[in-house]
This record gives sequence, structure tokens and C-alpha cells, in this order.
Amino acid sequence: MGSLQDRIDQAGGPLAMLRSSQIGQYVFPVAAEWSNWRDEQEAWNNSAVLLDQSHHMTDLYIEGPDTVRLLSDFSINNYRNFGRDRAKQIVCCNEQGQVIGDAVLFGLDDCRVNVVGRPHVPNWLEYQVSRGGYDVVLDRDERTVGNLRGRRTYRFEVQGPNAWAVLEKVNGGPIEGIKFFGMGQITIAGRRVRVLKHGMAAAPGLEIWGPAHEGELVRNAILEAGREFGLIQGGGRAYSTASTESGWYASVLPAVYSDPTMADYRKWLPDNGFEAMASLGGSMISDRIEDYYILPWDAGYKFADFNHDFVGRDALLALKDEPHLKKVSLVWDNDDVVDIFRSQFNDGDQRYKFMEAPAAYYATFPFDQVTKDGRSVGFSTYVVYSSNLRRWVSLALVNENDLTDGDQVEVLWGEPNGGSNRPLVERHRQKLVKATVMPSPVPSRVREGYRPYLEMA
Amino acid sequence: MGSLQDRIDQAGGPLAMLRSSQIGQYVFPVAAEWSNWRDEQEAWNNSAVLLDQSHHMTDLYIEGPDTVRLLSDFSINNYRNFGRDRAKQIVCCNEQGQVIGDAVLFGLDDCRVNVVGRPHVPNWLEYQVSRGGYDVVLDRDERTVGNLRGRRTYRFEVQGPNAWAVLEKVNGGPIEGIKFFGMGQITIAGRRVRVLKHGMAAAPGLEIWGPAHEGELVRNAILEAGREFGLIQGGGRAYSTASTESGWYASVLPAVYSDPTMADYRKWLPDNGFEAMASLGGSMISDRIEDYYILPWDAGYKFADFNHDFVGRDALLALKDEPHLKKVSLVWDNDDVVDIFRSQFNDGDQRYKFMEAPAAYYATFPFDQVTKDGRSVGFSTYVVYSSNLRRWVSLALVNENDLTDGDQVEVLWGEPNGGSNRPLVERHRQKLVKATVMPSPVPSRVREGYRPYLEMA
Repeated sequence: MGSLQDRIDQAGGPLAMLRSSQIGQYVFPVAAEWSNWRDEQEAWNNSAVLLDQSHHMTDLYIEGPDTVRLLSDFSINNYRNFGRDRAKQIVCCNEQGQVIGDAVLFGLDDCRVNVVGRPHVPNWLEYQVSRGGYDVVLDRDERTVGNLRGRRTYRFEVQGPNAWAVLEKVNGGPIEGIKFFGMGQITIAGRRVRVLKHGMAAAPGLEIWGPAHEGELVRNAILEAGREFGLIQGGGRAYSTASTESGWYASVLPAVYSDPTMADYRKWLPDNGFEAMASLGGSMISDRIEDYYILPWDAGYKFADFNHDFVGRDALLALKDEPHLKKVSLVWDNDDVVDIFRSQFNDGDQRYKFMEAPAAYYATFPFDQVTKDGRSVGFSTYVVYSSNLRRWVSLALVNENDLTDGDQVEVLWGEPNGGSNRPLVERHRQKLVKATVMPSPVPSRVREGYRPYLEMA
Repeated sequence: MGSLQDRIDQAGGPLAMLRSSQIGQYVFPVAAEWSNWRDEQEAWNNSAVLLDQSHHMTDLYIEGPDTVRLLSDFSINNYRNFGRDRAKQIVCCNEQGQVIGDAVLFGLDDCRVNVVGRPHVPNWLEYQVSRGGYDVVLDRDERTVGNLRGRRTYRFEVQGPNAWAVLEKVNGGPIEGIKFFGMGQITIAGRRVRVLKHGMAAAPGLEIWGPAHEGELVRNAILEAGREFGLIQGGGRAYSTASTESGWYASVLPAVYSDPTMADYRKWLPDNGFEAMASLGGSMISDRIEDYYILPWDAGYKFADFNHDFVGRDALLALKDEPHLKKVSLVWDNDDVVDIFRSQFNDGDQRYKFMEAPAAYYATFPFDQVTKDGRSVGFSTYVVYSSNLRRWVSLALVNENDLTDGDQVEVLWGEPNGGSNRPLVERHRQKLVKATVMPSPVPSRVREGYRPYLEMA
């Protein structure tokens, strides 16, 4: 088996590799729709929704006396009060302070954690452990895709303004004593289940997990309790829009492809893993892959703890007071989106890149150029249609000092030269789309109440 | 277990049952997209496509000395020259001549056939056999959904202008002696495989089947041979548009729900089968389910053989010279479709029913009212976006004497009163969409060359 580095070399560099990735459309490995994605999106804003996260994320269990030391050495987070029933949004950087990945870190016990997310962070931590020096045991529970033994846990999310009422009903009593982004236990169908408290749409909700074989029992109990509160299930298509609507930057391109000090890591990573197969798409074209890397602040992670040593600390300390990117929502101009839709009536390549509803992005890492009056000010990522906002919206990272809410910018939609050779890309033309800068997430009551894993050190 | 009749009774009649069906979006049980549905649609028009039909149709194998007598008694077709390597589009009717269903009938041997399609026809034939009087053995190979033992065969379709070149290359030599809608054998990867010849886009192609365990071997051999000819795989989303583009009326509502002489059949059918679970949707509202039934001529089946006795013969003979419906394409007005798209920017229920691309129908049996100058002239069924036509097009059945090519009609898009309670239906308003009557299928070179199962007795 070859390595990531082999594949990079064969492709002629990481950008060529990522831009010519032959992977197809990512489909969340759950039902696409339970009812329809419009109603399912609206449920998390207006009533309550059950989202199934059991399948699409990698779980890395770490256990042993050096668990916290490992995490502390390789992430920007503060671990002074970490332990059982604490959770964090863990962020790992390379020596330059560029983000390798982020994930949710669950403190299952004082010396046992679960790292849940895209594979970037699990891979990086596993590599570090493989180099020795940490007294920990790893157990990796792969995503359902490629997991031959079956997943160990179910993982549900119950969110929306009625979520708490549903959860207290299913629990048979009040749920108290769990702080925001704190963990606890409730009872569902006679089982004690562990939970993480966070929220969507300005209302608290819970992430719930337990042994996979109890998943259907728990799901059915929640659905039954939720009926009177308008709770419905959300499928993969609605879910694919949740990160943009919630303001979570889900598409970080792992900063592992170029740093000479990471050459060993690239030889350790396989040639068919996430980092090797992922795709880069969109209108932002640079020949420096570093232009696609971000720093923690760029994605809203402002909690780097410089009172401990970690990979990237010195670089981040030096960059701390420099200008960063900031996360904003771009609300796309209705008429321009209609023009894109209408262009599908044109012949041959006289059409713009099709905007699939509700999620129109077409790469693992979508990067579309954002300009203001023709000058580059950042990039736009996942663009989605939200039935709650009744608009097409993307999450963008832009120069923090260049733009304020309400500013007009332009997003260049589509790829140059008729489009890349990736399977998802039909021949098309590029189109400059006007967009309005708004806070991320957009709706005020969401913005005020939802802090999705973001500001918790 | 209850029966279909029980379910009808509980719902308060067949229309109430079908209109409140709680089944979700039908998703073809294959990859949704291999590349992207736009390129996949264009492949069957411009190069070649491999479509995987292995999973979504019911196969009913019938074997024994009375096989042809059974078929002859319960279908309108002519069996005088039927036998091994003959195929037909079998059409079954009730005593009133209304269509119960259609399917493809493969003559595997002189006394062994396979009936392939939606479950209507297999169910009807199985019921007739259960009543006795036919020396046949049935073996039912259920659709992958709900098939616990796994399917017996793979079934691929290779179509498009380059299909024949691909197939002759993979066969290692010319493919000769197979008539249109005739069967034969070719060699793929060292296996003799059976084939049915038909075509799409004015070019001949083959349907290919064999033991399920050889499916991947055969698929890979075709893909390998097809590369130089631009053959790609088509996924479920592209496939969901093929019937409209090809002019096949795929959405026949089985005429089994009301006829008093079929009461026993409704008691024999289960309460969780296709006939009980299917959904009826759209703007055509009648309180007579018979208004949703069709006669064979209406769907273009003009080959009823009155020289043999069959269920429905007398009724059809009496109706033979009456005016019928005819199958047409309706090309939807671009501006009206754009209006529907634009309405998704409106608040609340001030929007039209979302048109999902590429297949916007939202019921097993979609029936949208078609009017000309306000007068009802028929109904529209599956509406799709075709990247080949660069238009939204539906297949409609309209009064044969009322309309000619080029006529302007109106399709009422959406359901009354904000929409039914089916899960697929978000709250919406109805919209009158202008449309132009065209032949079915639309493109002239398709229309001239493709006869999809239609006119073969």
C-alpha cells in the first residue's frame, strides 16, 4: 500500500491531487429524506428534529494515564479543568499554527475520551501515538463507510425550540445540572444514556449516544415522545445544510500537505485515506496550497491557551495580534441565483454550474473566490438553500478588517476553463454572484443562542 | 396480517388511502450519482451509459406446461409466436379493460418466462395461479428492498449512440441476428450472457442479465471496454428521468381498487404491499378512482389481440373505436418554471411546490390536471429536467382528438388546500404552468428510433 506522499508525488503536487480527485458526491449515510428536506430544515427552527449522526464521523477512543497529556501536546485547547463529563471543540494545528482539523472531544472518564469528527484529528493523534512516548491505548471506530465490524455506538441529535420539552418528557422528569457543552446522563426507554448539551436555533438540545444495538429503541422512544411537539426526523439532505445555517466551518482543508516537518506524517498516511481522496473545488485558484490553510481564529476558534506547550504554539503566539479572517454568512442575491437556474435552459456549456438544492457545494473542500469591488477579500465555502431563511446562503471566511455586515461582495460561482475533470463537474461557465455580508449564523435568534462547539475552550 | 381491502376500509376508500400514503420519496436502490446526473443524462444521448436495473423491479419466474396459457388468459398480448428468446411488453387488464399493469416478459425458454417490472403484474398473475387451474410453478425474486435472501440476477442496460460499439468490443466480435425486442446471447468476460435488444436515443442497445454473483465482473468488463467510447455509469437520479425522456408511461395506477369482481383479489393482496402503500399525488382531484385508470391505448399499447380470449377482451372490443387518450410530452414554459424556483424566496406558504431536479414528481402515481383554455383535456405525470433537452418536460395522457403538436396547454402544479398530509409535501400554493404539446418522446432522433417496449405485440 502506498502513502499519501506517494499519491501527492504521482499527481504532481497536493493541489493537482485534490483538484482531480475522482470521488463522487458525498452522501450522508442515512436516509436522504424522512419527509422532505424543506420540512426537516424548518423543524429545527420551528419545532424539533432528530438528526442521526451515527454513521458519518470517525470515533477515536483514547484511554490511559497519558490521555490528557497527549491531547494537550497536540491541540490549542486548555485542559486544566478537563475530565469526566467535560467536552471541547478540539483544534489541532501544525508547527505553523495552521489548522489540521477540529473535532468534538468527549470526556468519557478522567483518562478516557472519544474524539468525534472528520478523520483529520483522529489520524493526527493516532500518528503521534504511533511515534511512542504516550501511555495510551487507541481504539478506532471507523465511519460506517468502510467499517466492516459495524459501528459501536448510535449518536443522535435532538434540537429545536421544542427539543427540551421532548427530552424532559422522554426522561420522565426535568433535566438539570448540565451546563452548555457539558455532559450528563438522562433516561430513555429505561436506559441511562450519556448526553452532551448544546443547541440550535437559540434553544438547548442534546446529543445522545450509547451502544449501537440500543439505537432503534432510543430513536423510537424519542420519536414517540416527540410526536405531540412536532418532532420529525431529519435526513441526510437537510443535515448537509446544517453547518452553514448553524455557522460551523465544516470544510477545513487539513494543513498537512506541504510542511517539510510533516514529511513523515505524509508517509504514514495511506494513499486511500481521507486526506488522499478528498477533493478541492471552486473558483479560488492559487498555486500555493498554504493559501487554503486557515488559522484557528479564522474559523472563530479564539480560545488558544498559550499557558501550555502545544504544536503550533510559538507560531500562533507570533500571529495572535495580526489581522485574521472572520466567519460570515453571505446571503446570495436572489436574481443572480435565478439567473443560474435559468441558464440550465441554455445549450451546450452556455450554462452556469448547477446549484443542487439544498446543498450546492460540489467538493470536500469548496473554495469560491470572494471579491469586493474586484479585490479578493476571502473565500466562500458550503452554499446551501435554507427553508428557514428562504435564501441561498454560504459560510465564508473574509478579511476581518475589510468587511462589515451589510456590505455587498461578489462570489465567483463555478470553476475556470469550463470546469475541472472531477466527476461532479459538468461543463459550465463561471458567474459572478452578488452577495450581502451577514453575521454567521444568519438568523438573529439563532445567532444569539447557538454556539456550536465554537467558543468553548 | 390484514389485506389491501382492510386498509382501504380503514382509510375510507382507495382514494383516501392513496392520497394519505405515508411513504417517503422513492429512491432507486443504486448509487444516486456516479459522476453527476447532468453528465449521466447526456451520456445516453451523446455517448453511452450503463444503467443498473438489478434492484428496483420485481421478477416473477413462471415455469411449466401452462405458462403461455396463463399469460394468454390474463394479458392483451398475442402469443402465437411466443417462446424462447421472445420478449414482450405484457399488459394485463381487469374485466373493464382497465390496465392493472405492464411489465417486460422475457421468454427464457418455451415454457419458462420472467416477468419484470413494478409488482402489479407479478401480483396479479400470482393471484390467478393461487386460484388453481394452471400447471405452473412460480418463483418470485423480490426487489432488493425487502429481499432478505438477495437477488438472483444482475440486470444492466447499455444504451446510447456508442452502445453497440461498446457491446461488440466487449463481445469480441459482431453481435448479429437479434431483432428489435428480441433476445439472444453475447459473451462478456468469458461468460455467455443473455440479452434483450432495444434502444434509447435512436440507437440500439442491450439489456443484459445473469447470476447476481457475476454482476461485478460483467459490469467491470463493460466499463473497461466502454472507456474509449465515453461510456459512463448512470445512477438513480438520472435513471429517474429516463422514462419521461424515453416516452414510457411508468406510472400506471393499477385498476384493482374498485371493481366488485376483484373483491377477492383485494382480500388476497396484503395490507403492506405495493398496492396498499403507493401514493397518489398532484392537482387532478376526482372522487372516482376510475378516473385514474387507463385503457391500454391511452399509454400507447395498441397491440391488443382480440383473436384470443383474455380478461378484459369484451370490454376492450367495445371500446376499441372510441376516442382514447394519447401520450404526449409537455414542455413546460421556462418562465413559469423560473417563477416556481423564485417563489422559494417567499415566506411561509407563499411558495409553489418545490421542483426537485432532475425528477420533480412527488408521488408513486403523479396526476396533475392539464387544461386547455380552462377545459380539462387530460393529466400530466412524471415531470423531469432533461439535460439533453435543456427543458423541464412531463409525460402526459391527453384526449387524442383535442390536442395537436404545438398546442399550448396549462398544467396545474401542486396540490389544493396547501397540500396533502403526505410526508413529501411541504405547505405550498398551486401554480398554473404553461406548456407546449410535443410528441413523446421529444427529441426527433429519439422519437424516430426508440420504441421502448411499446409497439411490440
